[in-house]
Amino acid sequence: MADEWQDPYDFAVEVAKIAGKIIRRAAEEEIKVNTKSCTVDLVTATDVRVEKIIIGAIKEKFGEDTHCFIGEESAAAKGPSVLTDKPTWIIDPVDGTTNFVHGFPFVAVSIAFAVNKELEFGVVYSCFEDKLYKARKGKGAYCDDEKIEVSDIKDIHKSVVISEFGTNRNVDVVTEICATMKRILLIPVHGIRGTGTAATNMCMVACGAVEAFFEIGIHCWDVAAGAVIVQEAGGVLLDVDGGPFDLMSRRMMSANNRTIADRVIKEIKIFPAERDDGK
Amino acid sequence: MADEWQDPYDFAVEVAKIAGKIIRRAAEEEIKVNTKSCTVDLVTATDVRVEKIIIGAIKEKFGEDTHCFIGEESAAAKGPSVLTDKPTWIIDPVDGTTNFVHGFPFVAVSIAFAVNKELEFGVVYSCFEDKLYKARKGKGAYCDDEKIEVSDIKDIHKSVVISEFGTNRNVDVVTEICATMKRILLIPVHGIRGTGTAATNMCMVACGAVEAFFEIGIHCWDVAAGAVIVQEAGGVLLDVDGGPFDLMSRRMMSANNRTIADRVIKEIKIFPAERDDGK
Repeated sequence: MADEWQDPYDFAVEVAKIAGKIIRRAAEEEIKVNTKSCTVDLVTATDVRVEKIIIGAIKEKFGEDTHCFIGEESAAAKGPSVLTDKPTWIIDPVDGTTNFVHGFPFVAVSIAFAVNKELEFGVVYSCFEDKLYKARKGKGAYCDDEKIEVSDIKDIHKSVVISEFGTNRNVDVVTEICATMKRILLIPVHGIRGTGTAATNMCMVACGAVEAFFEIGIHCWDVAAGAVIVQEAGGVLLDVDGGPFDLMSRRMMSANNRTIADRVIKEIKIFPAERDDGK
Repeated sequence: MADEWQDPYDFAVEVAKIAGKIIRRAAEEEIKVNTKSCTVDLVTATDVRVEKIIIGAIKEKFGEDTHCFIGEESAAAKGPSVLTDKPTWIIDPVDGTTNFVHGFPFVAVSIAFAVNKELEFGVVYSCFEDKLYKARKGKGAYCDDEKIEVSDIKDIHKSVVISEFGTNRNVDVVTEICATMKRILLIPVHGIRGTGTAATNMCMVACGAVEAFFEIGIHCWDVAAGAVIVQEAGGVLLDVDGGPFDLMSRRMMSANNRTIADRVIKEIKIFPAERDDGK
């Protein structure tokens, strides 16, 4: 049944665009900010509202009972996010809330879909750039309907790496993150960049604008859609220690190829992050 | 003579847009890369070609003899850039060459104009975003003809700061830059961002997307246009030690207000950078 999930895939694209339009409109209005886990982890009324709209639309289309949902904002209320074999939507309504609050031009809607614990498709809509990235397992990755591919650079010295500071301001964590950045710069590489949203960062890997992006502390809803897009664009997805990628581990390394990934991994100073599934 | 420089101002806007179009087209073709000062300081045929086109157009319009030019690519050949009292164009044809080479979506054309050593106007065209920022002394700052203003945030804990790693890979310099970033993160702030181009970063301050951007190691052509734009948007421009801004010093702090600037300045670890004018 090759086309079993074509319908949800098409619907995800449609819903992501509608959500993006709502986010763009909200950005022009006054933004009310709440802090979530700490003073630098922000959540706005838009995050909550857009997630409700996305989940509501999907439930209306596909029924309440057959599909499950893991959403950034509902997870904050529900506790650990457990992936079952059921068809499951993994949603970040506003990836890059800090950017959204400040008007920095990278904010994405991220929608992924998993069945039997395997990701089937991912959709990322970078709503201020107005670029829609999507990929379905085995069918390639696209940006605005144009096929995208990772870069073919194998020489680390000619690469650009994305690395984010994240929202954790614990002194030990910040120290490790800054030490890792320093080590990567001194390889040396062409540069370190970051858009402030994991979903868009993964799309930057997928379309060949950067060679690698890794992060410790991200959540499953930040990277689930990007994971499909990177892999379908020909890239690799790993744990930050080089082992297999685990969606719930809050650790992720994406790269254009294994050579680049392995070289960057050598420089990563790993720090602990509590899993999304509470295991 | 309030309108003495209106003509060159309008012409700069026109030329920046034409240059941006050439850059966008070149990005679709094969990119040939040379290294300039070291293996991470890149220059392409496009940099050189676009600078020639910009300077050629200005000379044709305003004459060879009355106007002077300080351009990134011609400076590399001519040695120290000295600002005289003559009308002088300060040009970076492709600010963000590393981004350009990799297809990371921030690349800007930066054109500034100084008379009697004072900046009269600045134009920055972010050519992949297709956003044109401009400002003329005493007449406000604009993005695509809409007036822009810096953010009104005074609480450093609610701010986003831009800080770049730059292209210098000397271990002492990289160590100082990473130490500064760590100190700023731990203030704490909402985040650290960077587009990889100084001109665009300054426009991010001017339009209120971030509160501050500073850098040591930038050149006069990277910041001359942005300097006018930030100030006309209501922001402040300083040296990284809090003293007066010096265009040739390769040190720059731009912020939405003095409160934010002073707080960030406290955390900056200053390292030496050779002046643009060789003094």
